[in-house]
Order: sequence, then C-alpha cells, then structure tokens
Amino acid sequence: MIKFSADANKKPKHIVIIGGVAAGTSAASKAKRINPDANVTIIQQESTVSYGSCGLPYVLEGLIDDFSELIARTAEEFESKYDIDILLNTSALKITPSKKQIIVSDSVYKEKNINKIIGYDTLVIATGASAVIPSLQGIENINNGMFTLRTLNDGIAIKSFLENNRPNSCVVVGAGLIGVEIVEAFKKQGLEVTLVGSGNSILPKIIDTDMSLIVKQELENNGIKIVLGERVEKILGDQKFQGVVTNKGKTILSDFLVFGTGVKPNSEIALDAGIKIGINNAIKVDKYMQTNISNIFAAGDCATAENYVTGKDTYLPLGTTANKQGRVAGENSAGGQAIFRGIAGSAITKTFDLFIGKTGLNSEEARKNGFEPIETDINSVTRAGYYPESKSISIKIVADKKTHQILGAQIIGGEGVKGRIDVVALALLKKATINDLSSYDACYVPPISPVWEPLNIVASNLSKFV
Amino acid sequence: MIKFSADANKKPKHIVIIGGVAAGTSAASKAKRINPDANVTIIQQESTVSYGSCGLPYVLEGLIDDFSELIARTAEEFESKYDIDILLNTSALKITPSKKQIIVSDSVYKEKNINKIIGYDTLVIATGASAVIPSLQGIENINNGMFTLRTLNDGIAIKSFLENNRPNSCVVVGAGLIGVEIVEAFKKQGLEVTLVGSGNSILPKIIDTDMSLIVKQELENNGIKIVLGERVEKILGDQKFQGVVTNKGKTILSDFLVFGTGVKPNSEIALDAGIKIGINNAIKVDKYMQTNISNIFAAGDCATAENYVTGKDTYLPLGTTANKQGRVAGENSAGGQAIFRGIAGSAITKTFDLFIGKTGLNSEEARKNGFEPIETDINSVTRAGYYPESKSISIKIVADKKTHQILGAQIIGGEGVKGRIDVVALALLKKATINDLSSYDACYVPPISPVWEPLNIVASNLSKFV
Repeated sequence: MIKFSADANKKPKHIVIIGGVAAGTSAASKAKRINPDANVTIIQQESTVSYGSCGLPYVLEGLIDDFSELIARTAEEFESKYDIDILLNTSALKITPSKKQIIVSDSVYKEKNINKIIGYDTLVIATGASAVIPSLQGIENINNGMFTLRTLNDGIAIKSFLENNRPNSCVVVGAGLIGVEIVEAFKKQGLEVTLVGSGNSILPKIIDTDMSLIVKQELENNGIKIVLGERVEKILGDQKFQGVVTNKGKTILSDFLVFGTGVKPNSEIALDAGIKIGINNAIKVDKYMQTNISNIFAAGDCATAENYVTGKDTYLPLGTTANKQGRVAGENSAGGQAIFRGIAGSAITKTFDLFIGKTGLNSEEARKNGFEPIETDINSVTRAGYYPESKSISIKIVADKKTHQILGAQIIGGEGVKGRIDVVALALLKKATINDLSSYDACYVPPISPVWEPLNIVASNLSKFV
Repeated sequence: MIKFSADANKKPKHIVIIGGVAAGTSAASKAKRINPDANVTIIQQESTVSYGSCGLPYVLEGLIDDFSELIARTAEEFESKYDIDILLNTSALKITPSKKQIIVSDSVYKEKNINKIIGYDTLVIATGASAVIPSLQGIENINNGMFTLRTLNDGIAIKSFLENNRPNSCVVVGAGLIGVEIVEAFKKQGLEVTLVGSGNSILPKIIDTDMSLIVKQELENNGIKIVLGERVEKILGDQKFQGVVTNKGKTILSDFLVFGTGVKPNSEIALDAGIKIGINNAIKVDKYMQTNISNIFAAGDCATAENYVTGKDTYLPLGTTANKQGRVAGENSAGGQAIFRGIAGSAITKTFDLFIGKTGLNSEEARKNGFEPIETDINSVTRAGYYPESKSISIKIVADKKTHQILGAQIIGGEGVKGRIDVVALALLKKATINDLSSYDACYVPPISPVWEPLNIVASNLSKFV
C-alpha cells in the first residue's frame, strides 16, 4: 500500500475530478469544504451532473414524473453555490501523470476535434462504469429498440421509445438488480414482460437459489414471464429490434429489449496513464482512495473497494459506495487523511412488493475465503401476529463454525429488510458473533415487529449448529 | 453473584412457574423443550395465558376485532400440545423456599378460601407488574369510568365501557408509552382526548425534551389536547368519574379516565419469601436469571435486567425482555446454563404516523453513569429525495467524548425507526465507536432509504465534536 503523501501545509491549488455523478460530485464538494481556496474542476462527459441513476426505473414506472427530478444539484448550483467549475459534455482523453496534465475534448470545439490541456495538483478519477452489452449474433444490425439503463440519457432514450412507439412487449436480459427493477416498471406500464437470466436463479449475485424462489414467485405472481438458465445468443430484426433467440433455441419475440447484463469499470484512461488496475479491471485504490500514482485518487464505480469481512478487494459498483469513496477521495485530494473502511457488499433492491437484500458472504463465498460456513434460515413476519397487514420475511444467515463470527445475511420480505440488513452490516464490521446477533436488544412495537425479533431468532437457531 | 447450581445430571422433576403471560409462558415452553420429562406447571391468576398485552391499544382502536386475537396460545394448547399444566384463575399466595412449596388459592374452592400446596424442584417467578394508580383526592369515590390498561381484563373493561356508555371524551393521565398509544386509539374512536403529563414533555423516559416536540406536534395535529407539567391531584365525581383537577387548578371534565402512570413489579411474594429485591423493588436476578435463593429464578416485568451499556441493573418492563428472560429462566430451571446478556433499554412506540424509539442512554443518563457525553442530531428523510411518500426522520445520537463509544440514540420518524434503533442497539452491545457507526455499509434502494444513510451521517457529524 502506497502511503498517502499529501502535506497539509502544502495544500493543492487545483483539484480536478473526472466524472460528475455520485463519486465525482461527492469528491468535489468535500474537497472544496476541506480546502475552500482550491480551484475544483469537474470534467463531466454527460450534459448533467449529480443525478441519481438508481431512480431511473421509477421514472420509467411512472412513479416519478420526469428525469429532471433525479438531479440532486445542477451544474449551475455547483458553480454558483459551491464555486466548483464544471465542464459539461467534456471527455477526459488522456492523463499524463508526469506533467500533471489531462487532455480533454473541448466542448466548444468538439466537432473540430480540438482538444485542451488541463493541469492539476491532485486528481480524482471518478469515471464510473459502463453497461456491458454482450456481443451477440445479429446485434450489429439493430439501431432501434435495444437499450441499456445506466445513464440519464439511457433512461430518456427508453422513455422516448415508449412514448413514440407504444410497444406492447419487452424482453429484459439479465436477472440482476437492474433486471428485477425494470421488469416491474415495464409491467406497470402495461407491457408484456419477459425476463431472461443465463443463471439458474433470479438475482444470483445477491441471494442463494433457495431464497431466490421467493422472488421468482413474486415476479410470476405479477405476470412476468421468466426464462432462466438460457443465454441469449442471437438478436432478431433488421435495424428495428424484433426478438431474441436463446442458446436452447427458444425464440422470444418482443418490441424492444433492455440489457441488464452488468457493468464494467471505466478504467481505460487510468490504465493508459500507468495507473495500477485491480480486480475486475477496476482502478486499484488503497484505503485513502489513492492509486499507485502520487496525487491521483480514484473513487466509485471505476474503483476497487475492500470488503471488510474478507479484507480483500472487491468490485461492487453501488451508489452508496461511490458517495462514500468520493468523499474520502475528495478530502484526501484536498490535503486530508480520511480513510474508507470498506464495504460489506450490502445491497438491496425492490421488485413489486418485495425487498431483497444481502450483506456479507453467502456460504459459497465464505468457503472460498477460508471460512467454515454454517447457515440457517427462518420464515417470519414483520408485525405482531394480530396486527393487520403483516408481511412475510425470510432471513438466511451465515456464520463461521469455528469462530462463530457472523459472515453474512440474505433477507427477503415485504418490509423491514433494510433495517435488518443494516444490523448485520454493522455486525460484520464489528465481527459480531452468533451469540451477539441473538442477544442484541431489538426494539418491539406490534405495528412494525413481532415480539421475537427474527434476527435474534435466526441467530439463536444457528447456535445449535456450532 | 450467586453461581447457578443446577446439575445437568440431576434434572428437576417438577418445574413451577408463577405467571402465564410473556416471561411465564416463554419459561414454561423452554423448560419443557430442555427437559421433556419434567412436569411443568404454570400458575396463572388470570383466566387466560400467553396474550400480547402490547396489542391492547389496537383492539381499542378498532384495528383488531377482538381481544381473543391477542392470545398467542390458549391454556388448552399448552396442555395438549406441550404437556404443560396450567392452573388458571389461581393465585400464588406464598413461597416457602425451605420446603420448596408454594401455597396457591385453589380455583375450585376459591370462594371458600381453601388453599392448596404445590411442591417444586425449581421455581420461576414471572409475576409481572401492575399498573400504578396514584393516590389522588376523591379517587376512592369512583367505581365507574376509571381504568388502567395492563391486562386483558383491563382492555375488556374499557371496551365494554365504550360500548355501553358511548362516551364523548376521555382524559389519559401519563404521557408515557401507554399514554401516547391509547390517545390514538381513543381519537380514532371519535373521542375528544386530553393527555395530561406531569413532566414537561411527551415520553420523557424515552426521548429528550427537544426531540419530544416532534411528537407533541404530531399529537396536536391529530387533535389531541395536551396538558404538560401539571399533575392530576383530584378526581371529580361520585361513583361515576366526571373529571380531574390538576395541581395548577385546571379542571378537565371528561367521561372517563385511563391511567398510564407506570407500573410496579409484582415482587411482594418474593420479598415475603426472603428473595432479594433490587432496583425499583424488582426481584434481583443474575445473568442466569437466578435469584439469591437456589433453584428460584425470576424473569420479566417482576425482575431486574442488566443494562449492557452501563453494566448496572435497571428496571424496564417490556415484552421483549420478558420473553428473553423467560426463555433463559426456563432453560436454567430445567437444568441448563443459559445466559441473559442484558438490555440496552431499546423501546419503540407508534402514535398516529410517527414511530418513536430509543436505545441506550441519553446525555443525562450517560453523565450519571460516568461518561462524558457528546451528542448531535440530524433531520433527514427515509427515501431518496425524488421517491414518493418519503417520511421525515430525526435522529439524535450520544457518544462518549473520550472513548468515542456510542452510548445511545433517539429516533423519531414516519418509517425506518425500528431498523435504525436496532442497528444502534447492536452497536451498543459491541461497544461500537462513532467511526464504526459512520462507516458500516448500510444498504440503499430509493423506495426505502436515502443514498446517504442518516445514521452514517449523524455519526459522521458527531465525529466533529471529538
């Protein structure tokens, strides 16, 4: 690990941040707060900054009127209220660490391919991640009706397609977080929706196959057609998308397609500059969010994050991590010494009336990381038995047989999922044991909890296996 | 502390439990599971067992049709399914530890004052607590229209009064947990409701005065009349209740009254038997739930509980604690060696659209316990800014300036209160620091959380004070 080298007495004069969504704007705001005298510049290739990309499905669902509502702060606000310069529609093309310079496309002269050089004292790379589009047979023929959902412009493009084409059906490829959120949105728009996942279960990176059956049932109950264990191999259509064919020969005709097939870190510019790349091709950072090059930091969806259960680097691009890492990178780029304590891999999503969450490791991941996992699960309820509108909740927890340390949890329920995932996320940080989790003094009131807290109970049940 | 003396090889043959609500039935069930050969007998002075007294306000509100729905398991079920004997309508009158005997009123001969002797090998006292009725001028004249809300029979009496008398107004004395729950119930029944609290704030034992203003506003917005800082001194009426007069001379006329003026442990029978009494006249127990007398355990609302933040005994009668203590007492009465790890004082209630929770210490309590408290609070929201129906949430946290250890939290909000109180409750058990609470990897999805978890943020804010 490279020790952070900034000297508080020699504060950077010019802090440049590449990227203006979650990590980038968090970094910029924090840098300016720490060092109000510095010039802080954000280079943003899109035409907006600081938008909540996690909200895109809800605009498409119709719950939120317009994409503009997802914008937390506009570029004008950053400039007028925070004195942060923002270069919109501007791409960072090359970083030259030896000269502390970045070559950017100049938005004014963009069409003439005229570039500009920007100098920096410290740099934060927050270039985010891009949707992965698999290379499929026939995909090159299509220029209409095929989408990803990653950026604000992606969302705008889908909404515009829906309005202009009034489609009846869609196929969503990928049964991950984006997949399960977007199928609800499209269903609520009255579309016939088919979800295709190449794995054998829904949300395979979040929950185990046994737990995922609850989600599958919820999707089917809401009229989503589900095709699992089949990989899309071929795209049908000429210019206009018409359908897909799977590796098992199944043809699914549809009016449009959305890929929810994962993302990849935008780390090429870093690689070109000689910055060390880590797991999943993400930019390798230490706990100060510093890269291997002095005065260059990285944060968010382009960077690695240490898992505080395993102590190992992971790549799990989520908005919460991006914001926190951005803040640390921003502080340190301005001369601070903040530390990012890592992630537990906490994630939660909602589809129809279910929340689905995970934190830490499942048994398989635990085994790969040298633990001896034991696990158990419980089906419980979210309110006192007699209180109306109680929801189901299912909890699986994993612990290490030898040390009794809690290693992870998966929770699916109609309510109360976030709070319980968060309890376990803290348990993981504090290396809490099974006995700790069965013993903490959970609060109780009939409208929002059963008298026996399900997390206490599932932990108590697990203690029988040690 | 008296070491637990049961020998697993010499299991008790007859386990007697005095009390059949939360702690008593938990103890009985656990004892029978641990030692299926034992005779387990519950002595219950009421005509039902195992009911959820926390649900009483919701029946009165009309959310739940009938009190019978609050009964988790009937005496018949305990007898037929679990082989646990239950003596209903039977009062334990005297314990004679030297003879291992209890004198009980015999329900069959009750009117003839004939008593019966029951022997035990181990005994669990789970006599609960009784509502405290203050001695007020004129109270002895009233036999109609004055209630407490503690037992199932209390609830039935109030409901019957409502049905038979069709009252228009009521006064609730005591602004604690019962008070704020019951005023909602009565308001939703269309009554004019006045809440009188002798302290200067609502829920003074749960939240600080500044935080309580949010609750006061909620009650007032819902049409509850609030009188604070005045003590009821006099009851008006002859036989039938007519109103109260406060120490400041205010007269509040009303059709009936409910006291929510606290409870006292039913520990007289223990005291008579030479069992050591602790804080608040509750039965003093150790972590095995054992009293100072060998083979006599106590659990629930009649017993003390160690606070795991201070390490000191407290008296905080709540259903969660009763159940957990009951289970430990039951296991140990049957020859086990279970340990109760204590409470954090976690409590939550709901009134109208607010949940109000506390765990651990407030600053004043922290100071009294030798800490050097620092505190801060935050007003945040429960969902992403753009997501519909986001609720407000206010969080105050307290930590120790020297060690940075988190000491407590108070949270008031429209949703998401339980989960966050529980996170802090675990933080307290694990002696988590401010940095831990600002760093744990909280999960995020727009329908149920803002991207910056409020607990992370309030902890991060508090770090500026150390």
